Amino acid sequence: MAQGTADIETLIELLSKLPGLGPRSARRAVLHLVKKRKTHLSPLAEAMTTVAQTARECLNCGNIGTADICPICEDTRRENGELCVVEDVADLWAMERAAVFRGRYHVLGGTLSALDAVGPDELRIPKLIDRISSEHINEVILALSATIDGQTTAHYIADQLGDVKVTSLAQGVPVGGELDYLDDGTITAALKARRTM
Amino acid sequence: MAQGTADIETLIELLSKLPGLGPRSARRAVLHLVKKRKTHLSPLAEAMTTVAQTARECLNCGNIGTADICPICEDTRRENGELCVVEDVADLWAMERAAVFRGRYHVLGGTLSALDAVGPDELRIPKLIDRISSEHINEVILALSATIDGQTTAHYIADQLGDVKVTSLAQGVPVGGELDYLDDGTITAALKARRTM
Ligand SMILES: [Zn+2]
Ligand SMILES: [Zn+2]
Repeated sequence: MAQGTADIETLIELLSKLPGLGPRSARRAVLHLVKKRKTHLSPLAEAMTTVAQTARECLNCGNIGTADICPICEDTRRENGELCVVEDVADLWAMERAAVFRGRYHVLGGTLSALDAVGPDELRIPKLIDRISSEHINEVILALSATIDGQTTAHYIADQLGDVKVTSLAQGVPVGGELDYLDDGTITAALKARRTM
Repeated sequence: MAQGTADIETLIELLSKLPGLGPRSARRAVLHLVKKRKTHLSPLAEAMTTVAQTARECLNCGNIGTADICPICEDTRRENGELCVVEDVADLWAMERAAVFRGRYHVLGGTLSALDAVGPDELRIPKLIDRISSEHINEVILALSATIDGQTTAHYIADQLGDVKVTSLAQGVPVGGELDYLDDGTITAALKARRTM
């Protein structure tokens, strides 16, 4: 089934595997891109190549950046003794969009899950414990999803951390809600009303 | 608002402008791609670069390919005297997926529209008239949308073409329906039941 050429079919195939896209929207996207070769396709191809060559996980916090240590971990103004623990980079970005938290982050990369056999070592929890002392953290804010796995993970971490103050986002996070779906106002309210665990 | 780095933000920005994607799905897609750098992002970046460098419109029919003349126009087995006129490359692809038409195509690039000031010259209609004699066409199949503009365009073309037999897709195309949304079976039925205009 020849639709265009092998190169264009390969592009459609790869785009259709992105979350949220399917074969039909991938075809639409490629037709759009081919029509806008100069103004959209070329810059997009360039941006992808750059990110493919440079993107990596921050060795300290798990955020995505283009160096071994991400801009947030490099920024000494964010060394305020507060550490916000999130499940995923998408949640870190959601927090940054709310622009209300001025400390640093720790990205777990998921939640504890007996079902999926995800244990503490898979979640950068040992690294989190290291950071509490090496970065002189005096408050750990658990910004985890209000799901069963999220809350199990929050309680597990609170138990591990010993003396440091541990708080969690509370007011405003709907039950069963995932952080990345919330608007900025809700995140701001939840952070301001955080409670000690 | 630093979310990652400038390169990653540029990529999100460009992806969010694709039809069917928005800022949120673009962020999700980029996170997915960065996690799958080797297996998904690098091949996608490469495919985009290749298509950006090579894709162009076929000088004969308006299909998209990687040479001045597309594979369908190059294929002498498709020189069967039948020419299928479609609005857009997406419609040509939909016809090819149905795999029922064995002739060649002519992509108009839209429909006549008084409102949008689209006239015959914008639609490759002069080139269509040339092709009738130069390619010894004995049947022109108008596979246009069952919209008012689509049908206006069909009647205009039928009037211009003179002696050649002009048919149109009929049975199976729902009123107001656009070709690219139809399943293969409907397209097959519509082609088989085509009527003389
Ligand atoms: Zn970092
Ligand atoms: Zn062609």
